[in-house]
Amino acid sequence: MHKKLLIPGPTEVSLEMLQAQARLLIGHRSKEFSELYGGITAKLAKLFEIPADYQPTTTTSSGTLWFDIVGRSIVKKKALCCINGAFSKRFGEIVRGCGKPADFIEVEWGNVVKPEAVAEKLETGEYDTLTMCHNESSTGTRSPVTEVGELVKKDYPDVIFAVDSVSSMGGDRTLPHEMGVDILFASTQKCFALPPGLAIAFVNNKALERAREVPSRGGYTDILEIFKFEMKHQTPFTPNISLLYALDKRLDLMLEETYARIYQRHLDMAELTRKWARKHFEMFPEPGYESVTVSCVTNTQGKNVKELNQKLAERGLEISNGYGKLAEKTFRIGHMGEWTVAGIQQALDAIDEIWNLSR
Amino acid sequence: MHKKLLIPGPTEVSLEMLQAQARLLIGHRSKEFSELYGGITAKLAKLFEIPADYQPTTTTSSGTLWFDIVGRSIVKKKALCCINGAFSKRFGEIVRGCGKPADFIEVEWGNVVKPEAVAEKLETGEYDTLTMCHNESSTGTRSPVTEVGELVKKDYPDVIFAVDSVSSMGGDRTLPHEMGVDILFASTQKCFALPPGLAIAFVNNKALERAREVPSRGGYTDILEIFKFEMKHQTPFTPNISLLYALDKRLDLMLEETYARIYQRHLDMAELTRKWARKHFEMFPEPGYESVTVSCVTNTQGKNVKELNQKLAERGLEISNGYGKLAEKTFRIGHMGEWTVAGIQQALDAIDEIWNLSR
Repeated sequence: MHKKLLIPGPTEVSLEMLQAQARLLIGHRSKEFSELYGGITAKLAKLFEIPADYQPTTTTSSGTLWFDIVGRSIVKKKALCCINGAFSKRFGEIVRGCGKPADFIEVEWGNVVKPEAVAEKLETGEYDTLTMCHNESSTGTRSPVTEVGELVKKDYPDVIFAVDSVSSMGGDRTLPHEMGVDILFASTQKCFALPPGLAIAFVNNKALERAREVPSRGGYTDILEIFKFEMKHQTPFTPNISLLYALDKRLDLMLEETYARIYQRHLDMAELTRKWARKHFEMFPEPGYESVTVSCVTNTQGKNVKELNQKLAERGLEISNGYGKLAEKTFRIGHMGEWTVAGIQQALDAIDEIWNLSR
Repeated sequence: MHKKLLIPGPTEVSLEMLQAQARLLIGHRSKEFSELYGGITAKLAKLFEIPADYQPTTTTSSGTLWFDIVGRSIVKKKALCCINGAFSKRFGEIVRGCGKPADFIEVEWGNVVKPEAVAEKLETGEYDTLTMCHNESSTGTRSPVTEVGELVKKDYPDVIFAVDSVSSMGGDRTLPHEMGVDILFASTQKCFALPPGLAIAFVNNKALERAREVPSRGGYTDILEIFKFEMKHQTPFTPNISLLYALDKRLDLMLEETYARIYQRHLDMAELTRKWARKHFEMFPEPGYESVTVSCVTNTQGKNVKELNQKLAERGLEISNGYGKLAEKTFRIGHMGEWTVAGIQQALDAIDEIWNLSR
């Protein structure tokens, strides 16, 4: 039996979207392709209301490629990496893995790096790049990106602010310019509710200007090569055409629902889940920094999460254990993409029944 | 009307394979995923008859990512890059773009770099990596990889031989160990007749040992990270699960047809196309080095290729103009993947009719 995915990603994908992939192929240097691709970037620009100095793009990759793109194409001098969980840590480690100097501001998992801590480090003038993970799906924690972005724009205009929005873009409100972010990226298997295989990014001119000064950007990781082809409504390398077909349809649906309503739906699902969690357990993140798309619950009752998932499987549902060292200490419920309040309520009811929790 | 793709890629993909993508998703850290993924690598190992010191893998990317992987993870001292067309050139340029020293042996497009020329350069002892493109789809030219591979294995055992087999793997005979290649990579949209979005590679232990000595391999381009996860039948980053579903089915079909018969079918399609080309035009590649999967024809009659494609479109067919500077001077017919001799014959008949060529 299929298990509907309430994990932090990949999220559940509807048959309609899966089918949208199954269209006959076209050549990626054809006029038809440029029409498709140009349409997708126009829809991304519209949905995320981006101003003229930003451009959307896609890469055939997971979101992680963008850690490398930032490491290879953006960091020239030194990066400051804000770390509060597994994915923000991987971002920092990959920047270092690219051979670029990087300092880490590391806080306890579940907490967030505050603007003041960032300002203190940026004040040294050592850094030209700042990295952050908007939505740490390992801990269900939402970082104060907008506050940090304001600070960077105002006081450190030479710093490029690159943000992993993999598990929040398009569910939580993530308008790159509004957040003061220069590079914001995500992937299709989270709030876009598509299969994995494509990343989506918004990049502004300031970031591209920086890239022009950075040597050894490589090929697949060269942000300038990507945007050189964007001008022709193409991609530098053969893209995943099937997923682009599906993304095109998904964007139509999102524009129809409107971003405001999508965001409200995600807030409502988060609110419902948090209320349930606080009744029976505790929320794991630092108060006020809970994710809108993934709720990470502290397992204060010491329930067996692995067994829960075995029983949920019989009902065609799957949630997520805690990430890595947080397994059994926490568990995570993803509420993103096509999920609705009614669907999340049913899942929570199922957990209530299995764990004998009072309603 | 859909145009059946006789271009060098993406090739035509059947509805069955497109549909194979449209299965409901599973988590990429689940047991079900590891079973799927382990099955795929086992089938790749079987089809390509690889010995124990090689491992198959896949990456969610186009084949080009592997240019970066070689540049980032393999080249330590200096690379020697054999260049005879657009894609072998891009390989060399990306290695340089990764900040690695690289010398180019460049020959006229349509010609191939001969083993003697390679030996002369390797003899200097300057190089630790050799790159080549097995099947230059820009010129329909097949490089003598096996002869070069023998030479490297015998006389230069410290050199890693990395070969782009993007448009030949699984159509032409491409067993990595038989070719003496340490890293052989391709992508799904060519002879595997699937949509683009996944790369497939075979890597031996010798290449992985080298990588351990190479610093700054990055994240998405770190070959060691890829194989660390292969041991668990996983991928380091969220993979394209839909395409893996389809690849699994494709490999079943390929194992059923057998590699020997697949190769023979590709030889037969190539033979038919070459015979037709030589009757009316000339073959572009240096004689004896014609590709088995893409025929590049010199347009000796000065026919208008762009107009031909407009007329072919009305019949639901599409071939390819010459690549870049070779447009109108050459044209290319891809005969790979699920295409058959009968299908290629129909396409050639259509060209005969449109161009008024004698039968």
